[in-house]
Amino acid sequence: MPQFLSTTDPDFEARFSALLGAKREDSPDVDHIVAEIIADVRARGDQAVIDLTARFDRLDLTPATLRFTPEEIAAECALVSDDDRAALELAAARIRAYHSRQMPEDASWADDTGAMLGWRWTPVSAAGLYVPGGLASYPSSVLMNAIPAKVAGVQRLAIVVPTPDGVTNPLVLMAAQIAGVDEIYRIGGAQAIAALAYGTQTIPPVDKITGPGNAFVAAAKRRVFGKVGIDMIAGPSEILVIADRDNDPDWIALDLLSQAEHDESAQSLLITDDADFGRAVADAVDKRLQTLERRAIAGASWRDFGAIITVADMDEAVALSDRIAPEHLELCTTDAEALAGRITHAGAIFIGGWTPEAIGDYIGGPNHVLPTARSARFSSGLSVMDFIKRTTLSRMTPEALAAIGPAAERLAKSESLQAHGLSVRARLDRLNRGG
Amino acid sequence: MPQFLSTTDPDFEARFSALLGAKREDSPDVDHIVAEIIADVRARGDQAVIDLTARFDRLDLTPATLRFTPEEIAAECALVSDDDRAALELAAARIRAYHSRQMPEDASWADDTGAMLGWRWTPVSAAGLYVPGGLASYPSSVLMNAIPAKVAGVQRLAIVVPTPDGVTNPLVLMAAQIAGVDEIYRIGGAQAIAALAYGTQTIPPVDKITGPGNAFVAAAKRRVFGKVGIDMIAGPSEILVIADRDNDPDWIALDLLSQAEHDESAQSLLITDDADFGRAVADAVDKRLQTLERRAIAGASWRDFGAIITVADMDEAVALSDRIAPEHLELCTTDAEALAGRITHAGAIFIGGWTPEAIGDYIGGPNHVLPTARSARFSSGLSVMDFIKRTTLSRMTPEALAAIGPAAERLAKSESLQAHGLSVRARLDRLNRGG
Repeated sequence: MPQFLSTTDPDFEARFSALLGAKREDSPDVDHIVAEIIADVRARGDQAVIDLTARFDRLDLTPATLRFTPEEIAAECALVSDDDRAALELAAARIRAYHSRQMPEDASWADDTGAMLGWRWTPVSAAGLYVPGGLASYPSSVLMNAIPAKVAGVQRLAIVVPTPDGVTNPLVLMAAQIAGVDEIYRIGGAQAIAALAYGTQTIPPVDKITGPGNAFVAAAKRRVFGKVGIDMIAGPSEILVIADRDNDPDWIALDLLSQAEHDESAQSLLITDDADFGRAVADAVDKRLQTLERRAIAGASWRDFGAIITVADMDEAVALSDRIAPEHLELCTTDAEALAGRITHAGAIFIGGWTPEAIGDYIGGPNHVLPTARSARFSSGLSVMDFIKRTTLSRMTPEALAAIGPAAERLAKSESLQAHGLSVRARLDRLNRGG
Repeated sequence: MPQFLSTTDPDFEARFSALLGAKREDSPDVDHIVAEIIADVRARGDQAVIDLTARFDRLDLTPATLRFTPEEIAAECALVSDDDRAALELAAARIRAYHSRQMPEDASWADDTGAMLGWRWTPVSAAGLYVPGGLASYPSSVLMNAIPAKVAGVQRLAIVVPTPDGVTNPLVLMAAQIAGVDEIYRIGGAQAIAALAYGTQTIPPVDKITGPGNAFVAAAKRRVFGKVGIDMIAGPSEILVIADRDNDPDWIALDLLSQAEHDESAQSLLITDDADFGRAVADAVDKRLQTLERRAIAGASWRDFGAIITVADMDEAVALSDRIAPEHLELCTTDAEALAGRITHAGAIFIGGWTPEAIGDYIGGPNHVLPTARSARFSSGLSVMDFIKRTTLSRMTPEALAAIGPAAERLAKSESLQAHGLSVRARLDRLNRGG
């Protein structure tokens, strides 16, 4: 049973705060092991990666077999059914179309002193994408990470994907092909992150690493941050559904379960202004749980972290939602569009009953890599912006320097940075001499 | 003496790589101490902050005196000269004008299935800005951090600035006033970062923390990352000047020294296609160093990390510059504008001999918080983007779901996420039954 809360409960604030603060994930402290793995890869390169892959993935590689050959990729892709391929291609086309609109414009203008100011965006030269192996090996994540990088103009995009015991997921290779990935390595864990960040004899280093992974991968990404860029460290997935009584309880139940089935640490929340509807959804969840393939996982998540919160009205719902800052927010109310406009903190909003969150996981177009654990208060989902960077530009004319240089000189003096001031003064003196 | 290199030297590649890889900063390992300080502030709140301020800043505070009162701020601001105030106001106006152009647009469109897609940008609700106390207390940094936050629409902007022995820098308070900062606390160190991230009885928590600081502050920012957003951890400052012979060696020398005087770990590099010009600049640096106020610092930086690199032509200069990925890049060549267009990795470019880098530190308009230590390969300077976040939006119609839902169902099946597929299938079944 999930928790039932109502904003009219005398202990509501305490229980809601507890729900917000609930620690849903035990992060094992693997930092020491990861530090050793990174040092080993930096010292021994390929051979360290090969030794660690033999130990952790029970797979014997050589420098020549670290990377999938074009023939190996083609052979794996040939195993993919036409229907699966078509679905991946439709998803890729929609994700590409959405992300293509994210490319920001360069800018350049002259200000009132005649100075030219502006900026220019350029892509990261090389990016690496971590793809988990085994059970959580999701081709959709390959598309969601690789396509923004390629839209951004990243020249060299490498994937690392562990293949424990040599088992490969053909859909992952197919997704990589469709997305335009340039290199695929059959390695994983902290050793793969180290190889991407520092390079080995066979694997050239990259500038940015994105993609989900286990505790070892997360710890390794934290450690190489600064040497390379990384994306956010993702926590367990979450959904908040805000729904009024005019919904099919079974639809809402399935939306809640589609987060819960990800992970026992996932969290599914329902806010409704109708307590009877809330109970009907709870009943529908229980019914679906009887037959769901992943009922053990989904049931544990729903029991331990699920909640149904009854509110007096949608104003209360909006206020609670912003305190939750949900990764996924589904709005199933009559005025869903207007309600969306009142939300400040959410990773992605799914508007109206015909927009199940699963559409966003696969094929809607927006990215499914989204801020978890309340970080939508200060961060955004993955986008083209993660693979580009801005260079600011300025060009003074003599007239512009004459207009604003003295103030710079004054501020340099107030900060006791004499050379700063002199670098301006030397030029102003030339102007004053009519130079 | 700085290093002299030439791309024609037989050992150039080895020496250039050594220059790139030089470790310029010893980061003391203060992580353990910082962990204890954060735990203390989380446990004891105000009292922990007060105790730590007494110990580290020799200043006795109470919950009532943690924050500057409006009267105290006004009294400090009254100490600022009219000229300094006018210089700060001109700088603020120019920084505000530049950053106002950075606000990205919301977007919303219907795709070919009739689905509505888009995104919306919203500001972080509350941000905290760390301002160092003592010698490196720079009012210009207050403007550069606070103005983008206010342009972004941050409702609540708090500054923490230590005042060791009770000594305050009036210009810092004046800059905060001009930038529209809402709260100023006289605390610093890891305890100030912990207070901003977790809140105390007196200091409400924020969502994002930016601003420079010492090793304790940097370690604390790393630790609270995830609970709140942070900006990049800045390393020592750098400049690369690319100059041909048609420049005054003294101007270039002063530009190199205006980085070197920041810090003994700063790095100033010159690339030129004329070895004689390079020697003339070296002579000009030596001459200026004889009288420069901060000659001990600037001289050490120039001696230990400075370099003058002679290249055959500007093609070589561009290639080396992109390997360096400099924080500041000054282009003093006849075709500086065209050269700027060929650079891929740089934090900020200053174009032409009339644009000394110091203009960008204070008054040009672009931000002076820029990526150091080669991180311009994958990251950008501080901007309005650091204080906003994007919520993606999607709204399916029944027709859109009918068009793309089956592919989502197929992909969910391939990832063994049954509830995902069922959440789409339940809706498609309703449509097939004629809704």
